[in-house]
Amino acid sequence: MRVNDVSTPAVVVDLDVVERNLDRMATYCAAHGLGLRPHTKTHKMLEVARMQLERGALGLTVAKVGEAEVMARTGTCQILVAHPILGEEKVRRLASVAADVDVLVALDSLEAAEGLASVAQRTGCTFGVLVEFDSGSHRCGVKAGEECAELGKAISAFKCVQVRGLMTYFGSVWGDDQQRSEEIAGLSANVERAIDAFRRAGLSTAIVSGGSTPAALMSHMIPGITEIRPGTYVFNDLNTFYQGLCTLDDCAVRVMTTVVSTCVPGQVIVDAGSKVFSSDLLSAGPKRGYGRIMEIEGAALLKLNEEHGFVEADDYGAFSVGQTLSVIPNHVCTCMNMHDEVYLSRRGEIIGTWNVAARGKVR
Amino acid sequence: MRVNDVSTPAVVVDLDVVERNLDRMATYCAAHGLGLRPHTKTHKMLEVARMQLERGALGLTVAKVGEAEVMARTGTCQILVAHPILGEEKVRRLASVAADVDVLVALDSLEAAEGLASVAQRTGCTFGVLVEFDSGSHRCGVKAGEECAELGKAISAFKCVQVRGLMTYFGSVWGDDQQRSEEIAGLSANVERAIDAFRRAGLSTAIVSGGSTPAALMSHMIPGITEIRPGTYVFNDLNTFYQGLCTLDDCAVRVMTTVVSTCVPGQVIVDAGSKVFSSDLLSAGPKRGYGRIMEIEGAALLKLNEEHGFVEADDYGAFSVGQTLSVIPNHVCTCMNMHDEVYLSRRGEIIGTWNVAARGKVR
Repeated sequence: MRVNDVSTPAVVVDLDVVERNLDRMATYCAAHGLGLRPHTKTHKMLEVARMQLERGALGLTVAKVGEAEVMARTGTCQILVAHPILGEEKVRRLASVAADVDVLVALDSLEAAEGLASVAQRTGCTFGVLVEFDSGSHRCGVKAGEECAELGKAISAFKCVQVRGLMTYFGSVWGDDQQRSEEIAGLSANVERAIDAFRRAGLSTAIVSGGSTPAALMSHMIPGITEIRPGTYVFNDLNTFYQGLCTLDDCAVRVMTTVVSTCVPGQVIVDAGSKVFSSDLLSAGPKRGYGRIMEIEGAALLKLNEEHGFVEADDYGAFSVGQTLSVIPNHVCTCMNMHDEVYLSRRGEIIGTWNVAARGKVR
Repeated sequence: MRVNDVSTPAVVVDLDVVERNLDRMATYCAAHGLGLRPHTKTHKMLEVARMQLERGALGLTVAKVGEAEVMARTGTCQILVAHPILGEEKVRRLASVAADVDVLVALDSLEAAEGLASVAQRTGCTFGVLVEFDSGSHRCGVKAGEECAELGKAISAFKCVQVRGLMTYFGSVWGDDQQRSEEIAGLSANVERAIDAFRRAGLSTAIVSGGSTPAALMSHMIPGITEIRPGTYVFNDLNTFYQGLCTLDDCAVRVMTTVVSTCVPGQVIVDAGSKVFSSDLLSAGPKRGYGRIMEIEGAALLKLNEEHGFVEADDYGAFSVGQTLSVIPNHVCTCMNMHDEVYLSRRGEIIGTWNVAARGKVR
C-alpha cells in the first residue's frame, strides 16, 4: 500500500527520515562528548525509544510515571522523570519501576523529595534526584545559584534519595545569530552559577542535564552540561521548521486526511480536526493555521473543529471530494498524543504500524 | 476515597450532575415532541450512552466509524454517523456495523453516496442517508433549497442506499435575546427551504435532524425539526457556562491537578497541561485561560505546556506544593478525548471508574 492509500485520518511516520534525525543528534552528541537522554514525550513508542538506545542514548526521559512504566520495557538501564512527582500513589508506582531500572526524578521542592524518600524507605528502593533550576525559561526550578545548593543539601539529609546532579530546561533558543548568542550567554551564566553552588557545597555534579530540541545543537556552547534531553528532533514539525532548525524534508510525520466536503463556497472541509492534530498553534513563523498542506501551494488549514478541518486556498478547483492530502502538523508531540497507532513508511510505501504505547499515560 | 484524594492529573465525572443534565434534556425533548439522538463525541463512553438510551434517546450519533463500532455495543437500534464517510476501508467497516444496527450517514456529495452504495451492494447491507444542508453554520452541507432535492434525487437512483431525510448543524446560537431570535429566524428559514424542496421532490422528510448543545433548548422554535443531536449537554463546560446555557453547578467534569512547583515568582505550576486539558481556548466569555480553578478566587490557568499548567493569581500565599486543585475545563469534549479512563463521583466520594471506550477512534 502506498502512503496516499491509507484510510484517513492517519499519522504516517517516515522511518528513513526518523533514522536520519536520530543519527544526526547522536553524531552531534558523540562529537561533543555530550550524553543524550532523549525525551520520549514526542513519540511515546517503545520501538523509537529502542532505536534511540541502539544509537547510544544513555537512558530515556519521561514526564509521567505511566510513561516510565512503559519505557522500562525497552530494557534501558536508567530513566529520568523530568517532572516533579507529587502524590503517594504515583511515587509507589515509581518505586516498582525502580526495582528494575535506575530511576532519577527532577524536582525543585523539599516536599517532592520528602514524598520520594518516604516511599523509598518503606519499599527499600533508592531514587536518584536531580535538582531542577531555572536557567531562563521560567517554568519550574529554583533560582540558579545558592538556592540549588540549599535544596540539594536539605535533600541529602533524607535516606534512600541520592542527589546525583542538576537539571534545567532550556526552552526555545532561536532567532537571529545575535539573539541566539545572547540567549546562550544567559543560559551559560545560570548553568555556571548552579554548578558552582553545587560544587562548593560538595554536592554531585555527575549529571548536569540540559534540555529542549530548539537549543539542542547549541548545547556544546554551554559549559558544564553533561547531557541533553531533546524530544521533538526525532520527528521535527512545522514549529521546528519555522524555528530554522530543520527543512521540511526533515519532518518525518504526515497527517493523511481526505477532502469530505466542498459545498460551502470559499472553503474545503477535510476529515481531520482538533482530535487528530491537537489545537496547538504555531509558536514560530506565520503563527496562523494548524499545519502545512504539502500538495497544494497556497492552501492553508486555517480552522479546526473537533472532526472538521477548514481549508482555505487560492484555487478551489484544485480540490475534489475524496482527494487525499498530507499535512505536516504544527506540534508533533501533541499530535502524536491523539493517536493509539501510527503507520510506518519508507520511500512512500506503507511497511507496518506501531502502537503509541505510552499515549494517554497522564499520571 | 474523596475526590480530592485521587492521584492527579485525573478527570472526575459527577454522576449526580450527569443524571440531572440528561434528565433535563430528555424532559425538554419529550415536552416538545422532539427526538433526541445525542452525540456521543463528548463522553465516548458506553455507560453514558446507555444512560441516554434508558432516558428515551431514539439512537446515538457518532462522528467516526470507529465510534460507531464501539457504540453498537450499547444495543442501540440506530446509529447516525454525522460526518461524510469517504474511503472504502471505512465504509466496509461501517457495513459490518450495519449488519446489526440501522446505520444512517449524513453526507453532502454524490461521491460520498456512491462510496456507500458501492460497498452496500457488494456486502448486501443497506445504509440510510440524510442529506446535510447548511442552515447557517457554514461548515458542511449543500445550500438549503433546491440543491437538497437535487442531491436527494441523485442519491435515490443508487441501490442499497435509502434517503431518509435531512440533517443540519446549528452551531452556536447564543448572545442576547435579539441576537438569538435573529439566529433562530435565519435557521428556521433555511430549514423550511430544505424541507420544502425535499417534499416537492417526493423525498422522505421522516428525519429532519438539527444539532448542537448551544441551540438545543431552542430547537422547538425551529419548525420541521424532528430530532436534535446535542453532545456537550451531558457534562457542560466553561464554554456552555459562558454561553449562558448552564450554571457552574451543572458542569459535571472536574480536572483534578496538583501544585508541583512554586519556585518561579509570579506563577504556580500544576501537573496538568495541554495533554490533559487539550489546548482549546474559550469560545465565549473572557476568551482567555484554559479552565476555571474552583478553590481560589482570582486564580487563572493562563498558559499550558504539554505537561505543565501555569497559574497566575492575586495571592500566591494561597498555594503550596502538593495541594490539589479542581478545574472546570474550557471544552469538555476535547478534554475527555485525552483520557483513557475517568473517575466517577457522587457527593464528593469516588465510586468507580469508566473507560473512555471510543477515545482515539480517529477513523
